[in-house]
Amino acid sequence: MSALPRYAYLGPEGTFTEMATRQMVLGQDVEMVPVVDVPTALGAVRAGDADYAVVAIENTVEGGVTATLDTLAEGSPLVILGEVVLPVEFDLVAPAGVEIANIQRVSAHPHAWNQVRRWANEKLPGVTFVPASSNAAAALAISQGKDVDGIPAEAALAPPGLAAWLGLEVLADHVADVAHAATRFVRVGRPQAVPAPTGHDKTTLSVHLPTDRAGALLEMLEQFAVRGVNLSRIESRPRSDRPGEYSFSIDAMGHIADRRVAEALIGLKRTCPLVVFLGSYPAADATPTPVAQGTDDGAFVVAEDWVRGLICGSD
Amino acid sequence: MSALPRYAYLGPEGTFTEMATRQMVLGQDVEMVPVVDVPTALGAVRAGDADYAVVAIENTVEGGVTATLDTLAEGSPLVILGEVVLPVEFDLVAPAGVEIANIQRVSAHPHAWNQVRRWANEKLPGVTFVPASSNAAAALAISQGKDVDGIPAEAALAPPGLAAWLGLEVLADHVADVAHAATRFVRVGRPQAVPAPTGHDKTTLSVHLPTDRAGALLEMLEQFAVRGVNLSRIESRPRSDRPGEYSFSIDAMGHIADRRVAEALIGLKRTCPLVVFLGSYPAADATPTPVAQGTDDGAFVVAEDWVRGLICGSD
Amino acid sequence: MSALPRYAYLGPEGTFTEMATRQMVLGQDVEMVPVVDVPTALGAVRAGDADYAVVAIENTVEGGVTATLDTLAEGSPLVILGEVVLPVEFDLVAPAGVEIANIQRVSAHPHAWNQVRRWANEKLPGVTFVPASSNAAAALAISQGKDVDGIPAEAALAPPGLAAWLGLEVLADHVADVAHAATRFVRVGRPQAVPAPTGHDKTTLSVHLPTDRAGALLEMLEQFAVRGVNLSRIESRPRSDRPGEYSFSIDAMGHIADRRVAEALIGLKRTCPLVVFLGSYPAADATPTPVAQGTDDGAFVVAEDWVRGLICGSD
Amino acid sequence: MSALPRYAYLGPEGTFTEMATRQMVLGQDVEMVPVVDVPTALGAVRAGDADYAVVAIENTVEGGVTATLDTLAEGSPLVILGEVVLPVEFDLVAPAGVEIANIQRVSAHPHAWNQVRRWANEKLPGVTFVPASSNAAAALAISQGKDVDGIPAEAALAPPGLAAWLGLEVLADHVADVAHAATRFVRVGRPQAVPAPTGHDKTTLSVHLPTDRAGALLEMLEQFAVRGVNLSRIESRPRSDRPGEYSFSIDAMGHIADRRVAEALIGLKRTCPLVVFLGSYPAADATPTPVAQGTDDGAFVVAEDWVRGLICGSD
Repeated sequence: MSALPRYAYLGPEGTFTEMATRQMVLGQDVEMVPVVDVPTALGAVRAGDADYAVVAIENTVEGGVTATLDTLAEGSPLVILGEVVLPVEFDLVAPAGVEIANIQRVSAHPHAWNQVRRWANEKLPGVTFVPASSNAAAALAISQGKDVDGIPAEAALAPPGLAAWLGLEVLADHVADVAHAATRFVRVGRPQAVPAPTGHDKTTLSVHLPTDRAGALLEMLEQFAVRGVNLSRIESRPRSDRPGEYSFSIDAMGHIADRRVAEALIGLKRTCPLVVFLGSYPAADATPTPVAQGTDDGAFVVAEDWVRGLICGSD
Repeated sequence: MSALPRYAYLGPEGTFTEMATRQMVLGQDVEMVPVVDVPTALGAVRAGDADYAVVAIENTVEGGVTATLDTLAEGSPLVILGEVVLPVEFDLVAPAGVEIANIQRVSAHPHAWNQVRRWANEKLPGVTFVPASSNAAAALAISQGKDVDGIPAEAALAPPGLAAWLGLEVLADHVADVAHAATRFVRVGRPQAVPAPTGHDKTTLSVHLPTDRAGALLEMLEQFAVRGVNLSRIESRPRSDRPGEYSFSIDAMGHIADRRVAEALIGLKRTCPLVVFLGSYPAADATPTPVAQGTDDGAFVVAEDWVRGLICGSD
Repeated sequence: MSALPRYAYLGPEGTFTEMATRQMVLGQDVEMVPVVDVPTALGAVRAGDADYAVVAIENTVEGGVTATLDTLAEGSPLVILGEVVLPVEFDLVAPAGVEIANIQRVSAHPHAWNQVRRWANEKLPGVTFVPASSNAAAALAISQGKDVDGIPAEAALAPPGLAAWLGLEVLADHVADVAHAATRFVRVGRPQAVPAPTGHDKTTLSVHLPTDRAGALLEMLEQFAVRGVNLSRIESRPRSDRPGEYSFSIDAMGHIADRRVAEALIGLKRTCPLVVFLGSYPAADATPTPVAQGTDDGAFVVAEDWVRGLICGSD
Repeated sequence: MSALPRYAYLGPEGTFTEMATRQMVLGQDVEMVPVVDVPTALGAVRAGDADYAVVAIENTVEGGVTATLDTLAEGSPLVILGEVVLPVEFDLVAPAGVEIANIQRVSAHPHAWNQVRRWANEKLPGVTFVPASSNAAAALAISQGKDVDGIPAEAALAPPGLAAWLGLEVLADHVADVAHAATRFVRVGRPQAVPAPTGHDKTTLSVHLPTDRAGALLEMLEQFAVRGVNLSRIESRPRSDRPGEYSFSIDAMGHIADRRVAEALIGLKRTCPLVVFLGSYPAADATPTPVAQGTDDGAFVVAEDWVRGLICGSD
């Protein structure tokens, strides 16, 4: 019987999600559970079939933001416990002796191919794409001289680092249509004590607006601004259940245990029809969150003591 | 040795301030201490020479708003403990037998005369004003057939109600140049436990703005708006010590013990260079303060419990 | 028949208002029309009996702000055409040979006396106040060795500068209870072409709020803030006709012919139940109004041209 | 020589983008130009190789929002001229006689398969996916009894409506993992006169914030709110060129020729470092845009006339 923590992730093996998962659990013994899509991964956590899910949440290449954010926010509560950001780029790999000029077919997972189509159009004109169940499977087949689903290919797109393991050559690296493209992955679990603040945290929320009048969004954002809380992401999402109304997916800079963030959440909770807390966790970018004057915990404590003193007349 | 509470007020007797003071202490034994002006009244409380001062604070007829607000906000702390609002109107009083047509001189305190000049111009053309040290003194002299400071007068302006006590006739009542004019008076003491909330309270503040950029006032007012706190008065005051900067005198609707008001004060304290709390006390107008959805104490408690639960993961 | 412009002002002679009026018309031939109070002065302009009125509008010593602002904003339209600010301070004057120690009675206008009561209490203890119809009249009587209304006085309070004209000595100057106290006076006329912008202008407005909800004031002020228009004065005034609603008396920094001010006014006009324009005129303090980046006329013109180009597709 | 308008779209044939393009040009003779990806489609328009591009811009299934929005906003100007919204759902089609229980392989474009994986997992357990170059190609091969790239399949996923053309049966309709999923496609051209307002228009913008302080987003949104302009979409996008700063992709409700929208754009242009106008065009959802009181063109005209009259003194 396995006592290892079970991680559900978008499989099959060789996906970026798998890479992200492995990076998150570095040095730990875990059980990897590949699943067919993001809702299935999150559903496995909700059902207790997995302890955690790792899913792409932003700028994604393997299905996406939308599905992840919606599925996180609806249904029984889940929270984000951490994040990693992976660059979206590949190696073009082939057995020793193959040169770019000889390549007629390239195998890869369709999502990977989608990220390099422009590059392939320019650098490998006329080449044929051979879909594989995963990038790793494509590279493995090529390293063994086998066909991919019955079709031979001379080269494959592989995650950086895989070529060395399989004894393949790297014909081109940093292959990507969009420079600096990256995907953000998050580790999701059932509600539990929030990870301790680090000084470079994010708090992810889903918020429904009270009404759709012009000032409603402004009033919601004032709940953050008056406490000096910056947002690092905001995306409106039309509500399928209420035409003309919107929910907002938000990453606030700071941790729910920071006074300024806690008070902003209290303000949202009081005034918005629905606020879903999706976790406070260390930002992958470990730059300390700037804290404006008068918005650190000390300033809150001083001001609260002042008000308490006034009520008692001890001032 | 007097153990009675001592009330400093703008004298001499017969002033509106005296009337306001008597109305505030109705049914109590107090020592009335007439003083020469508002700063002296407040100074007496600061120095411990009086327990309370009653001073005009808004729409005033006897010196003013400005002096009162400035003097309250500067120097050692004082707090407002209550307010009354008096209509600014007079009776024209005279001994039995005197008719309006016979009046050649009217005696009154100069401030009272200032409030009825237009009326006198129309209704008593050609009449001469005889200044008295107080309205009550003028009425008393007339009731006794005496001169006022050596000058005889046929009639006097008296606070409503005084004529009956002195056996005088009322020739005209509700005398005032401005209909519905009223003065707000407040009872001021040294810092002490704030009077209990009543559901119809005011909180008076003096606030310095952080900067004079176009949005600074807006940001200060957002501290109230995001908590659903309405203002019943706001007045900018140029800061004599910093040209181009302003302080704001504010009456907020609600009590410092109300969560929404306390949190707004905490926000101001954190972000503004100076916040002076001048008291939470029952509004003279006893209409219950409207409380918008999500801004009552219950809503704060629910939201705070929610945040606490999230941090612990008990949700 | 007089063809001179007629100026109504709060008389009698010797008032600060008279001084303000004379300062405003320096070097011009005008007809001075003393009247009994501010509403009468403004009414004379409305009725065509005077061309202009000069009235105190802020921090006033002679009646006041409230009456002036209310009377300006209600009734047929009037506009402010200019302002002067006068310090509120006096000279204590007496014939040669009189020393402070010998003074038993001081004559002055009651309003002047009101501004120096604390000073007199300290510096002239036991002195008696002799009310005069004006400060100038008091000083004149003393210079001629005459009684004031039948009462002799050794000294008088006079506006700075008058002593030299009358051959009196100045026993104390800068006499005032409040340091740096000053009164702002405005020149008011019937609607006419607005004075040309100077770069240091004020625009005075009276604005009714659409509703009394917590955010309504904020939304009104946003009309200024988004155009970078600073306010130099804001005062709420309860509306006597609508309990619980407020009007706001506002001085905005800038001129109605400035694009940013014009657009703010257009925004107010569109969204508030009542906006009364009370004039754009040079500020007494001739410091150039700071203009934030992107809010000068040039920035508006560039942006408007850009939008026009986009609509036509010429970009 | 072709004089037909050339439409670049994400090919190959059978994509949803092709369906969207055909719906947009219904009844017109056009030349369809399939290209490899969104940047290529937009580049073709920029280079003059195509007159228009049709690209997915929201909730997309075939590559994405991000790429489209970024590519639109950067480089030489392009504008959106119209939009259509297509539901993301398929028919499961097969030759007469085939039943669901008999299906072992289903052919489709990989993107289509990606949208139905969860459905297939439940309804067609154990089935094998056969990737095709387009859904239409898959359906065509099956209708002709041919293999898809050398692999036989019993069924295909086809866009609604195609089965009837090919003589295939529909075994399941409205096949989709996410109910009501839809993709928004836009028609893009070089700058030109903006399409006439319809009363149900959208204006798409890309805006850089002046700074990353907490209130900067609020100030930007106030430019919309004070003119009563609602947003139907807002998405923050980290700026790759300036870490910690953001651009915002915005759909505002209304047309640049509407006064309220024009003025909001002028405000953004004045105060934000970069504003890219990406078009005003009829919203696919033809519901008339709600216009709050005081924000229609008439209200602007009335208010502008009022200000003009005040300046001239004609009021």
